[in-house]
Amino acid sequence: MKEISGGVCAPKGFSAGGIRCGIKESSQKKDLALIYSKKQCSAAGKFTKNNVRAACVDVSQSNVFCGHLHAIIANSGNANACTGQEGLLAAQRMAQLAADALQFDPREAAVASTGVIGVPFPIAKIEGSIGALKAGLRSDEQGHSDALEAIMTTDTRKKEIALEFEIDGKPVRMGAMAKGSGMIHPNMATMLCFITTDADIIPSALDAALQRAVKRSFNRLSVDGDTSTNDMVIVMANGEAGIQSITAYSAGYDIFRAALEKVCICLARMMARDGEGATKLVTVTVTGAAVEKTAEALAKSVVSSNLVKAACFGADANWGRVLCAMGNAGVEFSPEKTNLIFKSAAGEIEVCKNGESVPFSEEKAKTILREEEIEILINLHDGEEKASAWGCDLTYDYVKINGDYRS
Amino acid sequence: MKEISGGVCAPKGFSAGGIRCGIKESSQKKDLALIYSKKQCSAAGKFTKNNVRAACVDVSQSNVFCGHLHAIIANSGNANACTGQEGLLAAQRMAQLAADALQFDPREAAVASTGVIGVPFPIAKIEGSIGALKAGLRSDEQGHSDALEAIMTTDTRKKEIALEFEIDGKPVRMGAMAKGSGMIHPNMATMLCFITTDADIIPSALDAALQRAVKRSFNRLSVDGDTSTNDMVIVMANGEAGIQSITAYSAGYDIFRAALEKVCICLARMMARDGEGATKLVTVTVTGAAVEKTAEALAKSVVSSNLVKAACFGADANWGRVLCAMGNAGVEFSPEKTNLIFKSAAGEIEVCKNGESVPFSEEKAKTILREEEIEILINLHDGEEKASAWGCDLTYDYVKINGDYRS
Repeated sequence: MKEISGGVCAPKGFSAGGIRCGIKESSQKKDLALIYSKKQCSAAGKFTKNNVRAACVDVSQSNVFCGHLHAIIANSGNANACTGQEGLLAAQRMAQLAADALQFDPREAAVASTGVIGVPFPIAKIEGSIGALKAGLRSDEQGHSDALEAIMTTDTRKKEIALEFEIDGKPVRMGAMAKGSGMIHPNMATMLCFITTDADIIPSALDAALQRAVKRSFNRLSVDGDTSTNDMVIVMANGEAGIQSITAYSAGYDIFRAALEKVCICLARMMARDGEGATKLVTVTVTGAAVEKTAEALAKSVVSSNLVKAACFGADANWGRVLCAMGNAGVEFSPEKTNLIFKSAAGEIEVCKNGESVPFSEEKAKTILREEEIEILINLHDGEEKASAWGCDLTYDYVKINGDYRS
Repeated sequence: MKEISGGVCAPKGFSAGGIRCGIKESSQKKDLALIYSKKQCSAAGKFTKNNVRAACVDVSQSNVFCGHLHAIIANSGNANACTGQEGLLAAQRMAQLAADALQFDPREAAVASTGVIGVPFPIAKIEGSIGALKAGLRSDEQGHSDALEAIMTTDTRKKEIALEFEIDGKPVRMGAMAKGSGMIHPNMATMLCFITTDADIIPSALDAALQRAVKRSFNRLSVDGDTSTNDMVIVMANGEAGIQSITAYSAGYDIFRAALEKVCICLARMMARDGEGATKLVTVTVTGAAVEKTAEALAKSVVSSNLVKAACFGADANWGRVLCAMGNAGVEFSPEKTNLIFKSAAGEIEVCKNGESVPFSEEKAKTILREEEIEILINLHDGEEKASAWGCDLTYDYVKINGDYRS
């Protein structure tokens, strides 16, 4: 499995593009994106669990439910959330516009939006630009880049990856782009992730693979307790690689799942590192759990704790906060069997053994925690299961960004 | 029901005191407190739900379970948490020391600690100071103040209240002290609350009244998702007011419950206002819910959201974040029936009606949100139930305090 370039255009048969249609009034940035496969794709999607859902989420979820897509049309600058019946009509119209331009059934378009909540959606701007959007489609890396730029908002880094791997002795490609931060910014944020592949895979197997990958990646990202009204992960598989169709029983299924998981984890880590105001990527790994669910709950609780996050910012080896956050996870574990290690490129240091303090060099701990990527390793000594979760530190800049965003 | 002075010494028959025994090495502050009633008290307590529990929590919970106390002995500077078997022996010894000094059964002492986690507990310092602690007991306001000072850590304000009310035509008093912040600081924090009353009430009725009051006060305080290893609320009722013993069926029970709830809500609000780095008290009130549980879950989710808290700091009328936080509460409600108002001493302004934006003056909203006490009023239009939750804003100083606390 090797990394390649090209993003969502790396797999055969996909094109993409991004233009400026004027939704983001205050900037000259691109704000409308399209990802397209001429050949009908198997498709799967995972959507926000927030009870307040944007109109585009409803439209995309019902379209993806049927298992097939030709395109994803996405905009930034307006979330089309809390916009009522008008918003729903606008989201449906957005699918229709893409479908009419490229001649497919409108139920085979996914629609994604990100931006301000509660502002009427300017569908006319998309109507006026759909021709230019179609004309700008390209099947090379530039197409991918244009589309990615058009979905970015407060992101400070591009989140993209493409992989090549073999199934049935043939090369298969998978590409992806994402936007969003470890700490989500609901008025101008949302996590969006679009994945393309030229694998041939039936929708039910694709759905199961995506479910598993999302559970082990984006769902273990600290999103500050908050999910957005618009979060969405969509995968499209067009079968252009020419392999036999993958089912849940195919030999190739495990390879495909591993690739999808790798793509999702990679993007989740990029999001955590790009958390608003973040200076550090924090990975919490819990091992020695009796069941994976316990490890997951503990890792997520630690990586989400404001107190742990602030300690990471201050490079403070404050392991009491880690244990305290574990205690708040709502799952059973034995503090008196728990060991805790802080680790980074600068080394590692054990700070807690069997739930009690061990003498350690504060200076060495500080050196380790000053690195840009730090790990908190927790061993429960209670079994063989494990899980990682990703997040970032809590900084002055987080407060600054979120304290006066709209003004 | 009127406010009076005297704190925990306001009710008849209670004395209190606080001294410096040297646990807080780096300061000259008091660090050991005692609250005492010569007459045996009915007692009830509520304890942290964190799975990592300090030794003192185990000792106090098992002693309070029997329904009777004579005293509470408490220290600051060391949490006696993550201290193993030695820690448990030290907590038991602390109860024994108070009991020996004042001649009662050691199972009738509650023990509370707050301070650094994972550091061996210096029980010898308490042994050496128990005589002075006893000698310093006073039944006036000074006794209360000394004890309160000895349990304070990062608190910037004293949290105390006393009330007088009538039952059976006789005056009954209730006094209380608390320490802790809206955002809990597990290495030097913990929420402790000690309540005294000269009411006569049977332990089971006292327990039920405390359960209800805590649910409607401290449990609706934003504690940043984190509860401490040491959180504890204890109430002692010595019956010195000379009223008939209150049971759950007494006429006086409703009055007693109302007083206890008032005391707890008052202290919870003081804690929220004194949140680390906080500049504002934020009250979220959800009305029009079908059931109280829904209102409670929504209010707590909003008041705990970092994004809402940061917006309050920035005086930004970012109602989309409020709706988004409601969507994350894990309970059902209808966004399309939801109205939202920001309110303070400077006025009120409706910003969202039926889940959609209403035009409003950003300038007026900013003026309202610049006040030190702000309210977010949410109406679900789905029933008659309601709940409030309390918290504070998220500020640069929160990050500063928690980013380099230990160093």
